[in-house]
Amino acid sequence: MINFRTDLASERRDLYKKTHNLENEIDGVESEKEVIDQNITVERVRITNEEGEKAIGKLIGNYITIDVKNLKIAREDEEIKKSAEVLAEELKKIIDMHIDKSGEVLVVGLGNIYVTPDSLGPKVINEIEVTRHIIKYLPQYVEEGTREISAISPGVLGTTGIETLEILKGIVDNIHPKLLIVIDALASRSIERINSTIQISDTGIVPGAGVGNKRAEISKRTLGIPVISLGIPTVVETAVLVNDCLDLFIEKLQNDAKSNDVLNKIKEDDNYEEIKEALLPKEYNLIVTPKEIDDLIENMKDIVASGINLSL
Amino acid sequence: MINFRTDLASERRDLYKKTHNLENEIDGVESEKEVIDQNITVERVRITNEEGEKAIGKLIGNYITIDVKNLKIAREDEEIKKSAEVLAEELKKIIDMHIDKSGEVLVVGLGNIYVTPDSLGPKVINEIEVTRHIIKYLPQYVEEGTREISAISPGVLGTTGIETLEILKGIVDNIHPKLLIVIDALASRSIERINSTIQISDTGIVPGAGVGNKRAEISKRTLGIPVISLGIPTVVETAVLVNDCLDLFIEKLQNDAKSNDVLNKIKEDDNYEEIKEALLPKEYNLIVTPKEIDDLIENMKDIVASGINLSL
Amino acid sequence: MINFRTDLASERRDLYKKTHNLENEIDGVESEKEVIDQNITVERVRITNEEGEKAIGKLIGNYITIDVKNLKIAREDEEIKKSAEVLAEELKKIIDMHIDKSGEVLVVGLGNIYVTPDSLGPKVINEIEVTRHIIKYLPQYVEEGTREISAISPGVLGTTGIETLEILKGIVDNIHPKLLIVIDALASRSIERINSTIQISDTGIVPGAGVGNKRAEISKRTLGIPVISLGIPTVVETAVLVNDCLDLFIEKLQNDAKSNDVLNKIKEDDNYEEIKEALLPKEYNLIVTPKEIDDLIENMKDIVASGINLSL
Amino acid sequence: MINFRTDLASERRDLYKKTHNLENEIDGVESEKEVIDQNITVERVRITNEEGEKAIGKLIGNYITIDVKNLKIAREDEEIKKSAEVLAEELKKIIDMHIDKSGEVLVVGLGNIYVTPDSLGPKVINEIEVTRHIIKYLPQYVEEGTREISAISPGVLGTTGIETLEILKGIVDNIHPKLLIVIDALASRSIERINSTIQISDTGIVPGAGVGNKRAEISKRTLGIPVISLGIPTVVETAVLVNDCLDLFIEKLQNDAKSNDVLNKIKEDDNYEEIKEALLPKEYNLIVTPKEIDDLIENMKDIVASGINLSL
Repeated sequence: MINFRTDLASERRDLYKKTHNLENEIDGVESEKEVIDQNITVERVRITNEEGEKAIGKLIGNYITIDVKNLKIAREDEEIKKSAEVLAEELKKIIDMHIDKSGEVLVVGLGNIYVTPDSLGPKVINEIEVTRHIIKYLPQYVEEGTREISAISPGVLGTTGIETLEILKGIVDNIHPKLLIVIDALASRSIERINSTIQISDTGIVPGAGVGNKRAEISKRTLGIPVISLGIPTVVETAVLVNDCLDLFIEKLQNDAKSNDVLNKIKEDDNYEEIKEALLPKEYNLIVTPKEIDDLIENMKDIVASGINLSL
Repeated sequence: MINFRTDLASERRDLYKKTHNLENEIDGVESEKEVIDQNITVERVRITNEEGEKAIGKLIGNYITIDVKNLKIAREDEEIKKSAEVLAEELKKIIDMHIDKSGEVLVVGLGNIYVTPDSLGPKVINEIEVTRHIIKYLPQYVEEGTREISAISPGVLGTTGIETLEILKGIVDNIHPKLLIVIDALASRSIERINSTIQISDTGIVPGAGVGNKRAEISKRTLGIPVISLGIPTVVETAVLVNDCLDLFIEKLQNDAKSNDVLNKIKEDDNYEEIKEALLPKEYNLIVTPKEIDDLIENMKDIVASGINLSL
Repeated sequence: MINFRTDLASERRDLYKKTHNLENEIDGVESEKEVIDQNITVERVRITNEEGEKAIGKLIGNYITIDVKNLKIAREDEEIKKSAEVLAEELKKIIDMHIDKSGEVLVVGLGNIYVTPDSLGPKVINEIEVTRHIIKYLPQYVEEGTREISAISPGVLGTTGIETLEILKGIVDNIHPKLLIVIDALASRSIERINSTIQISDTGIVPGAGVGNKRAEISKRTLGIPVISLGIPTVVETAVLVNDCLDLFIEKLQNDAKSNDVLNKIKEDDNYEEIKEALLPKEYNLIVTPKEIDDLIENMKDIVASGINLSL
Repeated sequence: MINFRTDLASERRDLYKKTHNLENEIDGVESEKEVIDQNITVERVRITNEEGEKAIGKLIGNYITIDVKNLKIAREDEEIKKSAEVLAEELKKIIDMHIDKSGEVLVVGLGNIYVTPDSLGPKVINEIEVTRHIIKYLPQYVEEGTREISAISPGVLGTTGIETLEILKGIVDNIHPKLLIVIDALASRSIERINSTIQISDTGIVPGAGVGNKRAEISKRTLGIPVISLGIPTVVETAVLVNDCLDLFIEKLQNDAKSNDVLNKIKEDDNYEEIKEALLPKEYNLIVTPKEIDDLIENMKDIVASGINLSL
């Protein structure tokens, strides 16, 4: 299998097609693209059978990618509002596939509030309009039929010592939501997608995959209820970036007819591991991020929180 | 019963004695005071029978108050270190009463990271040296017999929609610690104690009691394992302060022989509710706090986190 | 003179009238009130001669108070936008009285970013749309006639060791703005006004007056250019609050016919200093604040920053 | 001249020697290395004449590099204390070269408090023990002969609209310090040096050079008083990193005898600009940083603030 180094189904589909020189869609993979306006594009990828699953390395299910261009440069309230509405609409459709209008929802924000590039999940949780306690303690203040919404930010294994799955299992067993919405960081190969893409999927999530620390899967299989994930690329791993740059660089040499067998061979190979080795020091996760990461996280937080609130 | 409006056993003892003009210790209440140095004092109150329980309104058990003077003005690393050591020693003794050296401990930081005067608990959690995941996944990196420590910051009902007890019950049922250490804000009557006093107790905790939102009790009774609480006064409720000032004021008039029957009557009554009414607007919790609250929380966080880490 | 313990001209006017049992407006003080909508009220007080100056203890000039009700409870983007527009309109009028459309403006945010209740000024500065450097280095990117706007957050005497006036004098002498807009915390007597009132004035400002640390005046007299101040009450001094509560309390007793000469005498006196003494410890500024201070500051920051940007 | 893409004199010296295959020290460049302990190394480079100036591209003067290994992984108070002491000692020596024991010092923290990787300067300023205002207003509280210390964090051009030099010039002209200490971010080529190296120099500083936005020079030439700079690499520019990786990669191929003329040619060239072009999008500064940047900044802030306080 290809080492995709991206969690985005649409990027994987593109990589698979490029590697195999496919013109048409992969068997078992359906997709459609919708241009909402000049800044927002929605792409819906559907993996329909095991062939597709095998090709893409993603479970059968829905993968919706919302791309918001230019979000990062200047924060415009209008743009954030529009993006939130598009997210809400897509989210609503996928929630309705799994539970009814009054089904209880627990929103989970993964990540570490104290590490800026990893703080999106906890920050979103702080903005979710929870209703569960009001329905329970002050029912007179809410309309009948209001959906019970609760929210939690369980922290990360490194600071809790507890697998996120263990924490969530305990809570799910005690408060019995019908569906989980999980917000997490994803790996992407594209710098352009940092804090400007949201992937919605209904096949669960492996927390920390985006930053190189794989944890126990959070999914219907492990929790017994459907899990909708909202994955947002917030960083790009440095070795991935360098590897991609190397390829682009050799490609450029090839175009200029300056390439040769050695270079062609290098390009064919996957040099990720070698590059990773060259990139001392190994002790910590080196990430590539726009310098404006703090602002970008704020913008994306507003979109995701508002999108979830609108959809519920 | 007296309306104490303080969670500190030692303050309650003093109030009870003052109200009943007692010279000697209350029946069922034992206490001792230890002056560590010119800045640090430890007071150990022990409620030994139901008489004491009834008088003080606190369960049978141990209540240790550590007072650190002048902590707030200038942060001196030496003073913080010393305070942490005193806390560690007291904590160690009380932990040893309940579990053995290798008993698993879960540290819980109550409060809301986004509300400065309520952020102590979550901030402490971020500094706890957790070992549970290392013992589980990388046992070769820890000495045999290392205690399993985990830590969680469950959030507050207002932002999660879930009772803290429900969250903790789920986690305790899943990871089976032998003892809980819970950090929470307490109510105190004394401005001098804001962020400079720690009460250790082994009788559990009612979260939010300090800021007027009582929640389900977290204790051996509700969780099945011993619960040691570290309570720190971080704010004083405004109506409590005004009430106390009024009393002090009338006392002063009495001393100056300017008082009279009406004033004496006012002083005897509890004017808390009337003052609360006079203190518009009612919509939110008005608190009295030193302007330097951000710095004080940082200092206290260092003491508590370091004290817990040393004790475990 | 009355010890007003408020910087709001409209509160002073009310106190003066109450103390002197005036029915009509004070000589030398004009005022009008405009109800914008159910939440927003604007009051314009104008001190027109030395009589008014003497009565109110404020210089001849304009004092506009914008009150926004319910701002604090739930943050509604609509309400913030509307408040910002009202602020912008008032600000525009007062700016136009002093400079022309292209006159350079320097916006100054007083306060300490590290102390939550004092962080409004620096936070606003971070959101001001500065143009001075673009006009200077990239004039092709701005329309001709664009006003030169710059912004600075000079810090507080306690952390810089330098009087704010000294810093501003240096900058004004170097970059020659035509007008200063200064954002600062004010003292108010009313808890209801914390983070929900803005006073605009064109008579300069004495920084820190709101929190008990008077500094050198920032005004046309000291800087040579007009100074428009935006003052926002962010805290209430605890002794002021207790004093007011005591008065309210005695008033209530009087209404219930339970009062007497001693109490009446107490009410007539100003007990502020005695209360302050009773309120140990003296070492730091005790403030009364809603627990939700962090959120309130964010809301007010959005209004002020957006109001200034719109007006310029 | 070589395009060094590093502000560290010791890195430039190494690059120059490598490029010119020099065995001995460059003419006009003297240096010595001192190993303090297993973690801390001090290297003192002295540029003594115009030859050295031309070779290295740095002005005649002193450049001291303090490297602290392993600082980043686990924060040990001992290590931070030791590093601060080493910094204080070096700083003291260089200060004593320029002013006497009582000469007034203004400490300046460059950078943007709201952008994590750029927030070191302002954070340090918040911890400087300023004395100027005490000496001026409360001389009875300080010993005679105490040095006047003030501190300021002037913000960045993008949020103030004012050149840092203009702001500093205004302040220096008003308060007349005898020496400036300026803290700023530097460019380095080495990821290992991010937040673990401090370069002290007495030749002034060009702010923002480290993050690609050159500003007006802050130096004796522009301000009239000696300027000591503390430069700390906090990020590595992404294109620099990729370029270096490419070189390392080809070097590896050369070592494996897999290289060829084309590759050798590539290695000889400077591919920085081409790589920069390949690294879309161009709109913002892409930086490489350890994911733990927030913690690293805190550690470095403690060292620098404490080092400066000790030295003064």
